[in-house]
Amino acid sequence: MIHFSINKNLFLQTLNVTKRAISHKNAIPILSTVKITVEEEGITLIGSNGQISIENFISIKDENAGLLVSSSGSILLEATFFINVVSSLPDITLEFKEIEQNQIVLTSGKSEITLKGKDADQYPRIQEVPTSNPLILETSILKNLINQTAFAASSQESRPILTGVHFVLTNHKELKTVATDSHRMSQKKITLDKNGDNFDVVIPSRSLREFSSVFTDDIETVEIFFANNQILFRSENINFYTRLLEGSYPDTDRLIPSEFTNVVTFNTSDLRFAMERARLLSNATQNGTVKLEIEKGLVSAHVNSPEVGRVNEEIETESVSGEDLTISFNPTYLIEALKAITSEQVRISFISAVRPFTLVPAEGQEGEDFIQLITPVRTN
Amino acid sequence: MIHFSINKNLFLQTLNVTKRAISHKNAIPILSTVKITVEEEGITLIGSNGQISIENFISIKDENAGLLVSSSGSILLEATFFINVVSSLPDITLEFKEIEQNQIVLTSGKSEITLKGKDADQYPRIQEVPTSNPLILETSILKNLINQTAFAASSQESRPILTGVHFVLTNHKELKTVATDSHRMSQKKITLDKNGDNFDVVIPSRSLREFSSVFTDDIETVEIFFANNQILFRSENINFYTRLLEGSYPDTDRLIPSEFTNVVTFNTSDLRFAMERARLLSNATQNGTVKLEIEKGLVSAHVNSPEVGRVNEEIETESVSGEDLTISFNPTYLIEALKAITSEQVRISFISAVRPFTLVPAEGQEGEDFIQLITPVRTN
Repeated sequence: MIHFSINKNLFLQTLNVTKRAISHKNAIPILSTVKITVEEEGITLIGSNGQISIENFISIKDENAGLLVSSSGSILLEATFFINVVSSLPDITLEFKEIEQNQIVLTSGKSEITLKGKDADQYPRIQEVPTSNPLILETSILKNLINQTAFAASSQESRPILTGVHFVLTNHKELKTVATDSHRMSQKKITLDKNGDNFDVVIPSRSLREFSSVFTDDIETVEIFFANNQILFRSENINFYTRLLEGSYPDTDRLIPSEFTNVVTFNTSDLRFAMERARLLSNATQNGTVKLEIEKGLVSAHVNSPEVGRVNEEIETESVSGEDLTISFNPTYLIEALKAITSEQVRISFISAVRPFTLVPAEGQEGEDFIQLITPVRTN
Repeated sequence: MIHFSINKNLFLQTLNVTKRAISHKNAIPILSTVKITVEEEGITLIGSNGQISIENFISIKDENAGLLVSSSGSILLEATFFINVVSSLPDITLEFKEIEQNQIVLTSGKSEITLKGKDADQYPRIQEVPTSNPLILETSILKNLINQTAFAASSQESRPILTGVHFVLTNHKELKTVATDSHRMSQKKITLDKNGDNFDVVIPSRSLREFSSVFTDDIETVEIFFANNQILFRSENINFYTRLLEGSYPDTDRLIPSEFTNVVTFNTSDLRFAMERARLLSNATQNGTVKLEIEKGLVSAHVNSPEVGRVNEEIETESVSGEDLTISFNPTYLIEALKAITSEQVRISFISAVRPFTLVPAEGQEGEDFIQLITPVRTN
């Protein structure tokens, strides 16, 4: 029969992290609960949606937790409801006591709330991932890789493999991360400080976005372990499991062009705001595109919606070289690509009106290591 | 053919105020537009949803507007879309020029956006309200009256008159404001500084909430005018019209009890948080109530949901007098009532388990001038 007391705020904060894996309306009802396991050394909270599982550990040694364990055990509690109840408690500490099988009392100040739980045995077992030979990455580097690629993954299930981000380690230290929805692509390469075992996996982009929310900036490094169809990201107190996508990822290297007829350097945010204006009107057109014209060193953007109106805009450039060109594309792809670029200037290289164009940061150290591709739309 | 230039931020801010009256999906399509009327002295923006109409005036004398009018005229523009376009413009000033009938060009920096509008003659005429003999109120006092009563109005159309707030001026200076949804009631009385003509009107609570958003705190006073079925709130640059509700408002004075068997003084926020905890579990019960027990000077709250669990809580009091009592009610009504009370302590007076109880601020100057009523729920 469980019995412990704990600091309410730290408990709540940890519950909220665990809850990121818990979906309110899961097809498997038991997955809407949080599993609480109390042992002498601390408390483990587990949440899962079948794709992602998060295990959080609160140690009795954590001073912020003020955790006192009197008696151990396991129970399942409806996650959303339990969190609402905990956050409503009046005092800064709470006492959690199992009074009979699967029934607990929370006491805090003069408030006493009895809740019914479920038998912990009903909770599915999380598949174990062998934790030897970790790949160790700085959290900020991994989150950066995710930010720069995951948005380009597909949101449609028609080709499930494209909903993931392809992570490949070759030569024990060359890490390539790439995502594409077949209309645009984003690829980032880095060289690891320490060698690791080569791997080739596709991680669901949705899981990666949750990873970025769960692993806050105060967690400096993360250990990564692979099993057959799973990956485990581990920090001191968090185990974050996600399933991998099965199937082979398309060969994206061959898509990246190397010869161009036309190169323009823009101010990243000026170009982005121009595209946002263009998008307001392109949304009202049939093919949803903006037309970019490069003519005699001047670049301009045009949208013409017969119903709503027109945009015509000259866009400032840092430099223009090559032949004249007119090319049409979906401005949303360019806006999202530009959002991923932190460099003040961006270099865009074109081949022709029907071939994909590339974007790379025009300053900083990334250069060609961070390359994006956008496919134009043929108009008329 | 309209032609003016203006500061983008001020124009945008004023458009956003006007838009509060504009519904994106109005049954009358023309009401999704904003009407822009340009005259020598300034620009008038009009939005309406048929219930509320807002007229905003931007004067050429307003230094923040930087308004230069070259040519006057009127046009209708799709409000949401136009506001999005204006907010996307790159420069701090914009030029607005009608280039042909109902077609305008916005120029800002190097961006040039052409938009199609509609003929201003299609816009319905706003019924005029004679502006003589205004009632003048401080905006903060009026907003306070609204905050303290409008939430208690009904949100259901089954008795339309109860969706409004009853404003009655008697003896030229006694203003009474009252709202009820038949389960609870809130009434606030004030004495005006200046005499006015007596009136008796019911204003839709939804209009009053918009009023509070439109009349910001920097607007010190508001003039009020009445017509048959309309009311006009006027400040220097804003005319806010709303329809009145027709029909006679029920006599609420007779509902307010004056003799009690039991009076308890609580700390307002302690009681509110206790009720918020109770509500978490009462939501899962059949009748959704919390039971308050007053026994030998101790007050406690109880909820018992067979499925989810129980709450038992002793609530601290400042003073308790009278007989023992057990009473059940919907905690949401008490929570909302307590939110409207700014005083640190609240005095609640009971008659019996089946008669409404009253709440008044236990400190400050309001006292009985701000009284609320909540009807209990009979259990078993």
